[in-house]
Amino acid sequence: MKNVKLTIAYDGTNYSGWQRQNNARTIQYEIEKALKKILKKDIAIHGSGRTDAGVHALGQAASFIEDFTLPTHKIPVVINNVLPKDIVINSAEEMDMDFHARYCAKGKKYIYKIYNDSIRNPIYRNYSWFINEDINLKKIIEASKYFIGQHDFKSFMAAGSNIKDTIRTIYSINIYRKDKFIIIEYEGNGFLYKMVRIITATLIDINFNKISIKDLEDIIKSKDRSKAGPTAPAQGLYLAEVYY
Amino acid sequence: MKNVKLTIAYDGTNYSGWQRQNNARTIQYEIEKALKKILKKDIAIHGSGRTDAGVHALGQAASFIEDFTLPTHKIPVVINNVLPKDIVINSAEEMDMDFHARYCAKGKKYIYKIYNDSIRNPIYRNYSWFINEDINLKKIIEASKYFIGQHDFKSFMAAGSNIKDTIRTIYSINIYRKDKFIIIEYEGNGFLYKMVRIITATLIDINFNKISIKDLEDIIKSKDRSKAGPTAPAQGLYLAEVYY
Repeated sequence: MKNVKLTIAYDGTNYSGWQRQNNARTIQYEIEKALKKILKKDIAIHGSGRTDAGVHALGQAASFIEDFTLPTHKIPVVINNVLPKDIVINSAEEMDMDFHARYCAKGKKYIYKIYNDSIRNPIYRNYSWFINEDINLKKIIEASKYFIGQHDFKSFMAAGSNIKDTIRTIYSINIYRKDKFIIIEYEGNGFLYKMVRIITATLIDINFNKISIKDLEDIIKSKDRSKAGPTAPAQGLYLAEVYY
Repeated sequence: MKNVKLTIAYDGTNYSGWQRQNNARTIQYEIEKALKKILKKDIAIHGSGRTDAGVHALGQAASFIEDFTLPTHKIPVVINNVLPKDIVINSAEEMDMDFHARYCAKGKKYIYKIYNDSIRNPIYRNYSWFINEDINLKKIIEASKYFIGQHDFKSFMAAGSNIKDTIRTIYSINIYRKDKFIIIEYEGNGFLYKMVRIITATLIDINFNKISIKDLEDIIKSKDRSKAGPTAPAQGLYLAEVYY
């Protein structure tokens, strides 16, 4: 038996997210179908976590245990010919048998992209959140500091998760302009359901004075989802890397 | 009557190019349909030129003459609510009555994007040409200089055009790396059918020693399409601007 770790990039535009489900096209389903084609086995893969419909990945990770003859390092070149063009396996490595893409993940990096210009660019419509008003970078950078460190992020978790322990640590939030984009990079030991998108929308609410920076500590302490900002659109979010 | 100039951006991925045609979805058709909805008139627009299936535009231009009551500057905000999300009208201006988007065009700028990395990025699959081998920028920059100036570019025109005068002037070709992209910017007084894509593929053939730089002058002089390189993929090409 081999325990294989896959590193995966995908354009989430045309999928109902990562997780296999009935009657919907998902990334996990497409990869399992392609693995069956090339390895002739029914294989269930375990992702590092789900991504929602429309969310992209530059470095999602998944693992599976199976017995097969194809040399593991040849999986990418073989499977990428079978997969839809919007899903790419970047690497396949053999791991120790106790490796598990979800349970062994030590942290993750997410990137959120805002396209900030006076006019909409159709090329980026599925790959960023379009905001055509001025964004005060200094202000949202100042606000972002309140999220860094270990906090109970319950106010920033969407309904629909059955997670009980809502304490997470954000190591860094890095915000910068690049051409007409505002890039927000989040690194942490884990993120709750839709947490990155809710923090992002909260930062934007702060920019537009819908939420005040001085209320942020209270919003975090309240553990009340209704106190935080809305949820930023899925298409601006990228799962950039999973740390092990 | 008003003579209106539209500036247009589009993602060409899901279209059979600019030009209206039977039984195919085109950019021109979608814009004319949307104009009919908002102005209640049958309107034929004239583009600065065609773009092929899969080719994008950041600044295509088109014009039409019509009598209508909506203030011209309000066209973008009204029509963008009616147009598909992958077509955006950026501006609408009233011009002198002798303006015509095609006949008055003095020059154009095209951008060609190559995604040059060891691994494919699914996010950019419809927006660049993926090349996973080393590209020697200095070499293709040197080669690009042979195209600058006034030449008969017949060797670089695809079949299917009925243009007789194949002399064009390229003002500049600007080549640089940006992140994992190689960007090639072309400015000229006009470009023949598929000329930018054929020159681009010729530069890449030179990179891979399929064509020698010292043969370039002869290839241009030959006026023989078969002597030049192939045609670079449509999805890397952007009509960036039309000069008047």
